[in-house]
Amino acid sequence: MAEMNAAERFALIKENLQEILNPDIIEGILAEGRNPKIYWGTSPTGKPHCGYFVPAVKIAQFLAAGCDVTILIADIHGFLDNLKAPIELVEYRAKYYEYTIRAMLQAVGVSTEKLRFVLGSSYQKSPEYVMDVYKLCSLVSEHDAKKAGAEVVKQSNNSPLSGLLYPILQVLDEQHLDCDVQFGGVDQRKLFAASTEWQPKLGYRKRAHLLNPMVPGLTGGKMSSSEEESKIDLLEAADTVRKKIRKAQAAPKEVENNGVLSFAEFVLLPASALKTGRPEFRVSRERDGLEPLVYHDIKQMQEDYKNDILTPQLLKPAVAEALVELMAPIITAFEASKEWQEITLKAYPPPEKKKKEKKQKDKGNRYPGAKTAETAELPLREIGVQEPTAD
Amino acid sequence: MAEMNAAERFALIKENLQEILNPDIIEGILAEGRNPKIYWGTSPTGKPHCGYFVPAVKIAQFLAAGCDVTILIADIHGFLDNLKAPIELVEYRAKYYEYTIRAMLQAVGVSTEKLRFVLGSSYQKSPEYVMDVYKLCSLVSEHDAKKAGAEVVKQSNNSPLSGLLYPILQVLDEQHLDCDVQFGGVDQRKLFAASTEWQPKLGYRKRAHLLNPMVPGLTGGKMSSSEEESKIDLLEAADTVRKKIRKAQAAPKEVENNGVLSFAEFVLLPASALKTGRPEFRVSRERDGLEPLVYHDIKQMQEDYKNDILTPQLLKPAVAEALVELMAPIITAFEASKEWQEITLKAYPPPEKKKKEKKQKDKGNRYPGAKTAETAELPLREIGVQEPTAD
Repeated sequence: MAEMNAAERFALIKENLQEILNPDIIEGILAEGRNPKIYWGTSPTGKPHCGYFVPAVKIAQFLAAGCDVTILIADIHGFLDNLKAPIELVEYRAKYYEYTIRAMLQAVGVSTEKLRFVLGSSYQKSPEYVMDVYKLCSLVSEHDAKKAGAEVVKQSNNSPLSGLLYPILQVLDEQHLDCDVQFGGVDQRKLFAASTEWQPKLGYRKRAHLLNPMVPGLTGGKMSSSEEESKIDLLEAADTVRKKIRKAQAAPKEVENNGVLSFAEFVLLPASALKTGRPEFRVSRERDGLEPLVYHDIKQMQEDYKNDILTPQLLKPAVAEALVELMAPIITAFEASKEWQEITLKAYPPPEKKKKEKKQKDKGNRYPGAKTAETAELPLREIGVQEPTAD
Repeated sequence: MAEMNAAERFALIKENLQEILNPDIIEGILAEGRNPKIYWGTSPTGKPHCGYFVPAVKIAQFLAAGCDVTILIADIHGFLDNLKAPIELVEYRAKYYEYTIRAMLQAVGVSTEKLRFVLGSSYQKSPEYVMDVYKLCSLVSEHDAKKAGAEVVKQSNNSPLSGLLYPILQVLDEQHLDCDVQFGGVDQRKLFAASTEWQPKLGYRKRAHLLNPMVPGLTGGKMSSSEEESKIDLLEAADTVRKKIRKAQAAPKEVENNGVLSFAEFVLLPASALKTGRPEFRVSRERDGLEPLVYHDIKQMQEDYKNDILTPQLLKPAVAEALVELMAPIITAFEASKEWQEITLKAYPPPEKKKKEKKQKDKGNRYPGAKTAETAELPLREIGVQEPTAD
């Protein structure tokens, strides 16, 4: 893929996105033969799960398109998230996030040479950054800050003040990470639009923004008390993966809000394209003595699903096997790294008692994007995956 | 005054104040024979004038009572005040404030040995301070921040976000300046009450708060286009001082909202007590061939004023002479200091053109406490003097 031209690079950058703000900024950089610098932020609060493959595959595409990618591990944000986790725990989780995300990208087969991890704490306490926070706060009205955060920050009279501060920080991160582009979920749209307005107020350049659609969760369904079932850990045993996907919600013929089908669309097809140069998804029909179904794009898959040719009973095991295959190198890397194993124990210490276990679970759920959860009050960074909602 | 006991020290600390929050904190420190550490903040935006004598005399009393006084020159706040003044200008003004305030205190005859000036920029950009800003913002609700700033911050949907941030900063300043007490105008009451609630959230100690009443301006009257007339500069020529006070509003027999009488109460009587050990205010009646009126407290002055024994025609020249006398050492100090003179030129450069002059004037008016002026949007620190209001 090293010989892609500007148009091909741009096509790969924007594949599967819902929207791009100020695309001319990216096109201009590509036209000059330079590499766009893209930043994505995530807060190390819960534990990354398979839903993280959605942004990870986009990031892998950015890397494959020759972009410089910065992943901001927003540890200060994580620490401030209700101050529930002590700062040391957050630092271990930050490390765990870095191990995990790097392994996910390597699992997709892209080089992570141009990938940079930055801890929020490494610059968000610097005098230059702080003066910019103070300055922007004196240039942006309460109304505009509120509007910018409307879809990412839980807003009420009793919400913490930090909710109004975070859009300010997230916009300044673009400048202080020296990036041209920020990537996030469509729920960040208002914040991204605000960035376009606010950067020039400080004499900084406008940024482009890449917006991922909200992708339904892999396992679907309501959030239940047996919450463990609704998430698939990145280091989950193959059999558990198969079992969880077998139980996943995927109504026959229904393409909308179908987490299993969406996972094929936003993760499995693009991941196979990154690995082999062409998207491909195979569905075995051996049990019925038929030839496998082989797909190269989501349209044909959706068509067959609507017509019940690709039934949930056929789709689910195929997605499970593809996912198990995608996860295999991550598990191998984890098993080979003593450091990563040790970090995991420190970042997610096993609960001591039955009673404490419940508390631990609550925390595990507060990963970036879980804004629908009632407990999540702070504006964590979106990973572009919709969570099952409790009703 | 070095041999004051705890009760005498406390009496001097609270003289003329409207209210004290958590006085037991101060009493406890005095009972242990220690020196209360008091902080007062001011933002170097406009140019200090004679109204600054009101807080200065209180600060002189704190010093005379053996307190350690810290004056925060809030230069970052000054700079952020609509970003109208470049940062270099604000730095010069900070220096000018320091020269002026020190000279005012020396003019009252107190030792400024235990007086410390601190620039906001010297610590408000430090990592420790910033983490506390982030933390407190995640612990304090928008509602509570708004409530705390209600009387010092201009609040509307379109007000800058910094208005909500400033109560946070002002409360944290108490901790980071390591003070036991904050001094300010009664309009800061809600913010001071918030401090009592917020400090423990961060594991910090509660502070006491000393509240000065709102004292009517010396010259009184409406703010007019000939605004220069409504303020008396600290370096004003004696004849101009006399002329301005002669024109000042002071209705006969009316004690309420009488700036000239209040100046005697809150500045001249306590200043004479600091200098001579006993409050005294003399009113010459030589012109009428009568003995002078000599007062040792404000009550008798007010009584005589109500009964028109102390007429405005008698009071005004007496106040003018006392003020001229109070200012004399400041002018002498200014004339003796080349550095101060140079700083003044840099801090308040003479307007180049007629057109620019007007702009300059606007800025000069935005001194701490001028919150009634429509241009003042940011929560500058109160000096305890009411400004004449435009209607």
